[in-house]
Amino acid sequence: MKNVKAYAAQAADKQLEPFSIDRPDPGPEDVEIEILFCGVCHSDIHTARNEWGGTKYPCVPGHEIVGKVSRVGKDVKKYKEGDTVGVGCFIDSCGHCENCKDDLEQYCLNGPTATYNSPSPLDRNVHTYGGYSTHIVVKEDFVLKISNKLPLNAVAPLLCAGITTYSPLKRWNVKKGDKVAVVGLGGLGHMAVKLASSMGAEVTMLSRSPEKEKDANELGAAHFELTTSEENMKKLAGSFNLIINTVSAQHDYNPYLNLLKTDGVMVLLGIPPKPSEVQAAQLIMKRRSLVGSLVGGIKETQEMLDYCAEHGIVSEIEMINMDQINEAYERTLDADVRYRFVIDMKSLINQN
Amino acid sequence: MKNVKAYAAQAADKQLEPFSIDRPDPGPEDVEIEILFCGVCHSDIHTARNEWGGTKYPCVPGHEIVGKVSRVGKDVKKYKEGDTVGVGCFIDSCGHCENCKDDLEQYCLNGPTATYNSPSPLDRNVHTYGGYSTHIVVKEDFVLKISNKLPLNAVAPLLCAGITTYSPLKRWNVKKGDKVAVVGLGGLGHMAVKLASSMGAEVTMLSRSPEKEKDANELGAAHFELTTSEENMKKLAGSFNLIINTVSAQHDYNPYLNLLKTDGVMVLLGIPPKPSEVQAAQLIMKRRSLVGSLVGGIKETQEMLDYCAEHGIVSEIEMINMDQINEAYERTLDADVRYRFVIDMKSLINQN
Repeated sequence: MKNVKAYAAQAADKQLEPFSIDRPDPGPEDVEIEILFCGVCHSDIHTARNEWGGTKYPCVPGHEIVGKVSRVGKDVKKYKEGDTVGVGCFIDSCGHCENCKDDLEQYCLNGPTATYNSPSPLDRNVHTYGGYSTHIVVKEDFVLKISNKLPLNAVAPLLCAGITTYSPLKRWNVKKGDKVAVVGLGGLGHMAVKLASSMGAEVTMLSRSPEKEKDANELGAAHFELTTSEENMKKLAGSFNLIINTVSAQHDYNPYLNLLKTDGVMVLLGIPPKPSEVQAAQLIMKRRSLVGSLVGGIKETQEMLDYCAEHGIVSEIEMINMDQINEAYERTLDADVRYRFVIDMKSLINQN
Repeated sequence: MKNVKAYAAQAADKQLEPFSIDRPDPGPEDVEIEILFCGVCHSDIHTARNEWGGTKYPCVPGHEIVGKVSRVGKDVKKYKEGDTVGVGCFIDSCGHCENCKDDLEQYCLNGPTATYNSPSPLDRNVHTYGGYSTHIVVKEDFVLKISNKLPLNAVAPLLCAGITTYSPLKRWNVKKGDKVAVVGLGGLGHMAVKLASSMGAEVTMLSRSPEKEKDANELGAAHFELTTSEENMKKLAGSFNLIINTVSAQHDYNPYLNLLKTDGVMVLLGIPPKPSEVQAAQLIMKRRSLVGSLVGGIKETQEMLDYCAEHGIVSEIEMINMDQINEAYERTLDADVRYRFVIDMKSLINQN
């Protein structure tokens, strides 16, 4: 057992504050990781503030983790002390259901163990604590290899924002020349633009904010179209093979569905507060699909990390110290970040 | 030019009445068909009553047509006088857009010509008249070969109800052992049960009406489940690979989406009067798809007819005479038909 520094919310209406948590010693198959960087995901905020319900306090968020192996259990084969590794949105699953066997642990039929706020796999009365801490202990099978080719702080957001956008691009088979649109230029959206364009797609950024055009183009978008212009939306009808919709604010899906070609697919990545209406005719008249996608399995996450290392793809980030987290939450909610905050965990280690 | 007997609605609030229409002489690539049987589809009623808007009067519905070739144009190659043939939901398309080239004429980007109530391909100021008539003239390429192995009256509904359910079963790759659910046991639903079970799927009928269980089983459903029972719906969560949803009345999609396995697909075939709400989480948490499908292309319709001839599959029908059409409409609206009305066109030929 190791008592380590962390940041936690003690209640839905409380700011995050310094806290200390006990991390177990690594069991035979476990890896202890000294955390270097942790990305700040919108889900962290939803959970810390109990906006999805079910948050257990104290709540230590964080599931975009990059660090160095500090200890390994005696049966660990893939990792040794000093290796650079990552941890994403989940740290365990049942291993024997059909989805786990298909490398789809994120859809584990017995419920994957989320990196934070999940019943602990060892003791269901305890809940998991995430990456806003100096160390974490994770089963070898749920630890990812990280290449040292790329800046490690900018790699951290790949563990959630990266895989969440990579997985649907692969699942719906994006290839050279495909016309892909991305809705919403935030943490997910900016990764979707980078990844889709790296795969050879002709990417269009769909946005309500003209001031985002420059960034979109620099990230790899070939086109930028304002969704506030009715003329634009009419012109774009039937244009896209795939739309990656990253928006979690309430919005109408139908104007976007209308932009899909025959057999086109719109992938939802965000969960708006309330259900949205869908016109059956929008789907039927062009055999369109409205689908959803949740992060990616461990095997695919490793594939994505290797792909990003090979293609030099990282997140655009703003570094913060641990004690700036509450301010970072407010700025994330105001979409005032380009495009992901990453916590430098040295700032927590060195904190008195 | 041939003046032929037909039945037409003269206005949205009028019953269908005897009428006569001019059919052109077949052009070089056209086939003139003496109609033997015409199925009664729910779309006929929507159109006759202008419930979708845009109906031009007089309106002669009917797009489930089986008959004999009575004359052919000089360049017609595939058909000769006396051949048994069929006509489905559309009789022309542009032929050069990407969808037409992909044998998806139903999604023609320049708009397919519907069998009734479409601008005529020859003269856009005239609209097409459907199968509630003794003859029809159709371009060779949009005429289907019909086997004489099966009772021709029961084949007629395959031209719409058959292809509308066959196409999504093929598109979403139904195979032996797949768990397929069908929602709504009507004209479309009963064909979905027959076709899916013929493909080796384990079919479950989902219904609100306990009295439909016997029919569902006889049609090929292995299971019958009441959707009115919350306990049933809980038990069935995550059960199906594919749900064929034939319901066009307003209903909530979410309880059905919840019955899909990971990567499961719900196909919408009906267009409810108003949009329906969809919870993004229902799609995201199991990578489910909500899709739509519209009839099928000419090539696939021929494939379906050949498949049905080979497997002995026809529609369950009730025969009516042409002058019973208004009563048949009322009974169709009351779901009081097992499972498709088919008009015996001899009754129109012989009518004074």
